Parts: sequence; structure tokens; C-alpha cells
Amino acid sequence: MFYVIGLGLGDPKDITVKGLEIVKRCERVYLESYTSIMTCGHEKLEEFYGRPLILADRELVESGADDILHNAHSVEVAFLVVGDPFGATTHTDLLIRAKEKNIPYQVIHNASIMNAIGCCGLQLYHFGETVSIPYWDANWQPDSFFDKIIANLEHGLHTLCLLDIRVKEPTLASLTSKKREYEPPRFMSCSTACDQLSQLIHKRRLSGEAKHHLFNDRNVVIGLARVGHESQEIKACTLKEMKQSDLGDPLHSLIIPAEMHPMEVEFLQQFCDEDLKELQKKARRDELTSIFKLETTLDSTSNSNN
Amino acid sequence: MFYVIGLGLGDPKDITVKGLEIVKRCERVYLESYTSIMTCGHEKLEEFYGRPLILADRELVESGADDILHNAHSVEVAFLVVGDPFGATTHTDLLIRAKEKNIPYQVIHNASIMNAIGCCGLQLYHFGETVSIPYWDANWQPDSFFDKIIANLEHGLHTLCLLDIRVKEPTLASLTSKKREYEPPRFMSCSTACDQLSQLIHKRRLSGEAKHHLFNDRNVVIGLARVGHESQEIKACTLKEMKQSDLGDPLHSLIIPAEMHPMEVEFLQQFCDEDLKELQKKARRDELTSIFKLETTLDSTSNSNN
Repeated sequence: MFYVIGLGLGDPKDITVKGLEIVKRCERVYLESYTSIMTCGHEKLEEFYGRPLILADRELVESGADDILHNAHSVEVAFLVVGDPFGATTHTDLLIRAKEKNIPYQVIHNASIMNAIGCCGLQLYHFGETVSIPYWDANWQPDSFFDKIIANLEHGLHTLCLLDIRVKEPTLASLTSKKREYEPPRFMSCSTACDQLSQLIHKRRLSGEAKHHLFNDRNVVIGLARVGHESQEIKACTLKEMKQSDLGDPLHSLIIPAEMHPMEVEFLQQFCDEDLKELQKKARRDELTSIFKLETTLDSTSNSNN
Repeated sequence: MFYVIGLGLGDPKDITVKGLEIVKRCERVYLESYTSIMTCGHEKLEEFYGRPLILADRELVESGADDILHNAHSVEVAFLVVGDPFGATTHTDLLIRAKEKNIPYQVIHNASIMNAIGCCGLQLYHFGETVSIPYWDANWQPDSFFDKIIANLEHGLHTLCLLDIRVKEPTLASLTSKKREYEPPRFMSCSTACDQLSQLIHKRRLSGEAKHHLFNDRNVVIGLARVGHESQEIKACTLKEMKQSDLGDPLHSLIIPAEMHPMEVEFLQQFCDEDLKELQKKARRDELTSIFKLETTLDSTSNSNN
């Protein structure tokens, strides 16, 4: 039997009772170690489970599926994943491979950031498409997430932004050498995410895009750090302020809320230093000013066309 | 301290190790018993925890918050919720009340249907807004969920449909009498949901709505029953076929997938009796025929207007 077991949000005790029983009795237990992080470190997990774990990095999971699934017809093998097992595509790939080999499999679900973000008070069914914000570099600054955020805002839906995680990325230099070397791990902060968003807002404004008024530096955003941990931090403030905020250690997630229900505002207020309703009003005033400016621009353009 | 603890998908052992430790040591433990169900029954939970539980029905949660939070300043009180604590608005309300009373609270997250549906192979970040499909009766047939499904389809996003649960609903007769009596619990099946959807498709077609071609009886839908349980069942078929399908005991959830990624199709194929790609092609052919018919209609209308 092949088990894929969700570990939840990162504390060793976040595993379910069912999951723990299976981990204790399996012949081999792999710990997926590249799409997310165990904030506690794998040694603490080994200690808590009272057994050794095999660290599974990207190379092992993507090209060593046969090794992982080896003899799982006859013995029990578990593959541990931070969050819920279906957070990353690579794990469905492992299950497809198990299916092809006629190895029975079972999935043990757990919390993931996709549902745990409910802790800020926004209702999960008011969320639209989730986006990922990748790190930019000098040559690569993808921005498709921006259009998805705008599309969600247009439909009155909140957006969860998953922030980039770079773990075990080979250094550029080592790509051409024989000895593979790795960059230190990087986890995007809410501050960096908001900085990239802010750059896009201004770029779009300059290019005269019609819908930018829905989203500007005054919009309320919600930063969440270390969700589910004792040191969890949630902060609601303007995008402008979040650029300057430090929510501490990873992992961070960011939410761009659309119009909020009064009950959502009431709950979220505990994470906001200012009056949240006032903040929203200000953002809306900016929005109206933007629309006005835009219409003026469009008017003058159409006049000059006459 | 006030704890809100997610129980996950319904088996007693789906609670996390952290959650179980808290349950064992709390002075009072409430079990929320109306927005969802413990498929196993609360007696099994009491046996597994080795302690009594207080059943909290809608009346207690909505008007007895003070009783639930009583002396939680000085003793530990837990409130157990099937799935994740933030699945239902009522529970954020309890936390707001705790905050008002300066009672510290902690949330223990767990899997919920909102993330566990990943088990069918569709990627969670390809989902749009989640909808709820309520039971219809002779006088009340709300259909706003239909427009949301269409909006998701237009944006290439899958839709999770949460199906109605009626637990402890007072009988119509007892509303005016002193003795409150309750209807037997009802849980909507995928079959009923698809029947209602199918009625809406035909109603919208008759009313000549432009976007109905995105969604017809030939669309592939995915039915999920008892997710996370040993008897879990997943079935992918046409909406038409799902109307006739019996996925057994509750709880059921339904997914209306948009265009699927090849990897999603590959994984989902294991739950489909026919060739999934062929089914999708057929649905698309229907769609094109519908567009053609629609355009013909529009043409003839505009001609008659000339």
C-alpha cells in the first residue's frame, strides 16, 4: 500500500491520528522537501515519529518515482507532504504512477493554506481563482497574476496569493559544471509581493489600462505569516503600508480582498491598527478619483479624435 | 482558553494529534452538530476521546454563545467542528464573541471539503468561486449558483458545488406550536443537484440566454461522495448520466469542471467509465452546435428587425 499523508501547517503535532499510526508502521517513509517547508525541521519530525525519514527532493520525486514506489505492492510505504497531499501537481503524478503499477493507494488529508486562510475571517466561498506570485529578476517579470486579481475584484471575489518558495534551486554557475550547487532557500515576504504588485499598478496606470482603478496603493490587503503556528501573525493594512511591513519568518501569504461582508470586516478588524471601514472608504474615494481622471483622459482623447 | 478544533473529514482518527491532546484535557467540549455531520455518530467520538461531548445545535450556537464561552477565561473549553473551523460563518461569530469578552482563543485547523476535493485530480488553484446548491421546493427555487457556475466556466475555472444539508429543521407545523418538532435530516445527492442544474439549463435555453452553450447536459461533471472515508466514491460522467447515478450515503459534493489540463484528465480518467477526452469532445461539439443555433436565431432576429 502507498500512502500520501498531509502534515498540515508545519507543527509535528498537526498530523492526524490516522496519519501518525500509518507513519509509525510503514517500512519506508519519505518526506517531500521542496514544494513547501516544515518550519520545524525534519529532525523534530523524526524525533516525534520515533523513526527515520527519507528526504525527497525535486530530483528524487520527479525522476525517482520507481524507487519511491519500489515493492509497495507488498509493504507499506508513506510519502509525507506539508499541507494537504493535493497541493502540488507532482504528487498527483506519483499517484498516477502508483495506479499504473496497480499499487493500491490511500490519501490522508489535512489542512492546507488553501483552507486555513479562513482564519483571517474572510469566507472561503468568497474567494476567486488563487494566484501565485513569483520572484522577479532583471530578465523575467511575469505578471499574469495581476490580471487574475483584477478579474476576481471585478466579480467581487477575494484573491489568495501564494508567494514564491525557492528551495534547492541550482546556482546558475553550477548548471554548467559537474558539481551541482544550490542557492540558499528564499521565501517571498508579503512586503516583496506588495512591492511587485505596486510596480505593476503604476506600470498599468502609465499604460492607461482601464481597470486599474479597482486596485491601487490604498487598497486594503491582508498579510498572513506562519498560519496555524503559535507565532502566527495576521495584518490588514493598505498595500502601501504592507510594502514597509515585516511579518517576520516565513511562510507568508497575501490576500487581496474584494468588497467585504460586514461580518468579514468585523472579524478582520482585530488584525488592523486603523478603522478598517475608513480605510476601505478612502480606497474607494481613490478609485472614484481614478475613474474621474480616466474619463477626463478618455474624453480629451475622443475630443482630439473629432 | 477557548479552542475551536477542526475534526477533518469525519472519521474519529481524522483529528490532529494536537487537537486530540486539547480535547482530552478540556473542561467542556462542544460538538457542533448542524452545519455538517459526523458520519460516524457522536457516540464513536466520545468513545475514541474517552470523554463526554455536549451536542451544540443551531439554537445553542446562535443564542447560547455566552453559555459556551462561560468561564473560558479560567478553564479550557473546546468547540469541535467537522472539517475546518472556518467553514461556516457561525463559528467566526463565536470567535468575535470570545474576542469581545477578552477570552484568548486558538484555532486548530484540519482538512475540509474545500481542499480535500483535490483528491479527484483537479488542481485547487484552477477553481473559481464555490457555490451552494440549495434544495428547491414548490415556492422557492433560487438559481444564483447557476450564473456563478457560468461565470467560472467563462474564465476557465472549475466550480465546487456544496450540496444542501438540512439538519434539525423545524417542521412547518411546529413553527406555530409550542412543541418544536424537526424534519428528518436530508442531504442533497449529486443526482438531485444535477437534476436541478438540468432544469435550469433547459429553462435558460428556452429563455434564449446567450451563454447557455457553455453548459449543457453533455458536460462532464464529477460527483464525490464521502471524501476521505474508506467508502469514498468519485465518479466522472456527463451531467445527464449523473442525474441517474447513485453514489450512496452522504455527504456528496459536485464539481463542474471547466477546460481541464491534460494532467487533470489523466488523473480523473480512473474515475470515469468512458474515454474522458471523447466525452469532453462530444460536449464541445454540442456547444458548437448550440452556438450555431444561437447565431442563426440572432441572425433571423436581426433580419426581422431590418
